[in-house]
Amino acid sequence: MSAREHVLGLDLGGTRVKALALTPGGEVIARETAPSEGSDWQERVKGVVAALSERLGPPLVIGVAAPGLAASDERSIASMPGRLPGLEGLDWSAWLEAPRGVPVLNDAHAALLGEVWQGAARGERDVLLLTLGTGLGGAAMVDGRLLRGRVGRAGHFGHITLDAAGAPDIVNTPGSLEDAVGNHSLPRRSGNRYTDTATLVRDAGRGEPLAAAIWSRTVRDLAAGMVSLINAFDPAVILVGGGIAEAGDALLRPLAGELDRLEWRPAGHRVRIAKAGLGDLAGAFGAARRALDLHGFHIP
Amino acid sequence: MSAREHVLGLDLGGTRVKALALTPGGEVIARETAPSEGSDWQERVKGVVAALSERLGPPLVIGVAAPGLAASDERSIASMPGRLPGLEGLDWSAWLEAPRGVPVLNDAHAALLGEVWQGAARGERDVLLLTLGTGLGGAAMVDGRLLRGRVGRAGHFGHITLDAAGAPDIVNTPGSLEDAVGNHSLPRRSGNRYTDTATLVRDAGRGEPLAAAIWSRTVRDLAAGMVSLINAFDPAVILVGGGIAEAGDALLRPLAGELDRLEWRPAGHRVRIAKAGLGDLAGAFGAARRALDLHGFHIP
Repeated sequence: MSAREHVLGLDLGGTRVKALALTPGGEVIARETAPSEGSDWQERVKGVVAALSERLGPPLVIGVAAPGLAASDERSIASMPGRLPGLEGLDWSAWLEAPRGVPVLNDAHAALLGEVWQGAARGERDVLLLTLGTGLGGAAMVDGRLLRGRVGRAGHFGHITLDAAGAPDIVNTPGSLEDAVGNHSLPRRSGNRYTDTATLVRDAGRGEPLAAAIWSRTVRDLAAGMVSLINAFDPAVILVGGGIAEAGDALLRPLAGELDRLEWRPAGHRVRIAKAGLGDLAGAFGAARRALDLHGFHIP
Repeated sequence: MSAREHVLGLDLGGTRVKALALTPGGEVIARETAPSEGSDWQERVKGVVAALSERLGPPLVIGVAAPGLAASDERSIASMPGRLPGLEGLDWSAWLEAPRGVPVLNDAHAALLGEVWQGAARGERDVLLLTLGTGLGGAAMVDGRLLRGRVGRAGHFGHITLDAAGAPDIVNTPGSLEDAVGNHSLPRRSGNRYTDTATLVRDAGRGEPLAAAIWSRTVRDLAAGMVSLINAFDPAVILVGGGIAEAGDALLRPLAGELDRLEWRPAGHRVRIAKAGLGDLAGAFGAARRALDLHGFHIP
């Protein structure tokens, strides 16, 4: 009904597509979701866009966040083996019949842009995002610019090593941060006592010795990985997002203790560690922001 | 005598200051060096600049590379504990009485700019530099831009971890890449049999078992560190410089073998590993280039 000026941010996940309609200032006007499983997910994404356009009128611009490595021209996801058949190489500008080009970003890259725009790193220029979930992903902004890299892989922080002599992870990194911290490896790390980090953290909080020991080790490993990233990227702030970050202070407090021990603090400079602020909407916010920037819209 | 248009690049090291006079196209016109030890090193740097100016006329611009963390306004080194007394906070534009501002860069950052301009990464946009010497330093260019970070620390690749349970290094990183590879730790790593990596590599090449084992381990650790950096920064090329890189193929060949095992190569993309091309002049080249860029000179 409304004809209010707005931008659409789409975040395509393995199970759902989330869409936000935002003012150019970042205020949420409307949201939609739809399942993204099954072979007709592309039609359902189109349906979400059509539904919002019917309610709100046509958007100024559209941006897309999706898993995988984005092509350097930002028109598609160039590489995403396995999930979401048809995503690789799909030209979103053509598919959505958008009058203006639709930029496509890696989902973690988009989440970082979202957090800098409207989340827990507002106004920052040197930011890392670590998403701690089943696996471990991330993104980097340095000197005010999101890092892409040669094949769009920058920020794959799950695949830094914590143990050069360790077992290879899914992309051959020995003893990786993802394998040390990600939920997927918790059964192995706990002798099959835990399958879910939330339960582990709850039991650790109750003083259960095995849980406390595993959680301490997890936090120590995360801190060691953060220290590598601090010395390599020199951020002002590191945001932690994803399901494991829902532990909140049960994560942030022991993490601060580890960083007191491990972090290089030249001239007293200390990196701020904070929980990401936009939850699972960060990617949609960031996709929208990228579309506004790409097409030169003024951001109030 | 000549009045040929030129730019000066100064690289201040712990023992020597090197100065290059270059055309804006990067051709070397003249070079000077002077010792930088002792309390009067600042006067001697000024003397080098004066000597070149007398021979060549005044330079268009001057750039400086120096150890430590450069201030974000690029006018000084903000943090450099220990060596070169008086370097911290010295305003080079004022000290050299240069009519145009003199940018000051961290020496590894400058070396990377030099290598991209006139060295082994010419024309590349996604480049990491690792300097392998007594310690291990580095710098990163991503998407065509040199990374500085919040306090100018970006690229301190010596201080990423290879062993989260290891002993802390000089800035508290546990089991660091610097401690695994840098020449400074070779006595410890070899049970005091070696103090110098060149000798280690020579003996390894002769089939001496202890030397071969230590060198293999060193190369494996370097490869693991590189893999972390590849997945975090996504470079097209990694340059290796510094004394240890003088091993040439004795380093690059086994390193390639380790990377075949450890590197993530999405869609077959493989990072090129190469020896840096400008030796100990890279910093002076890069400092000159930064000064040209800062003042908007056309680079042929």
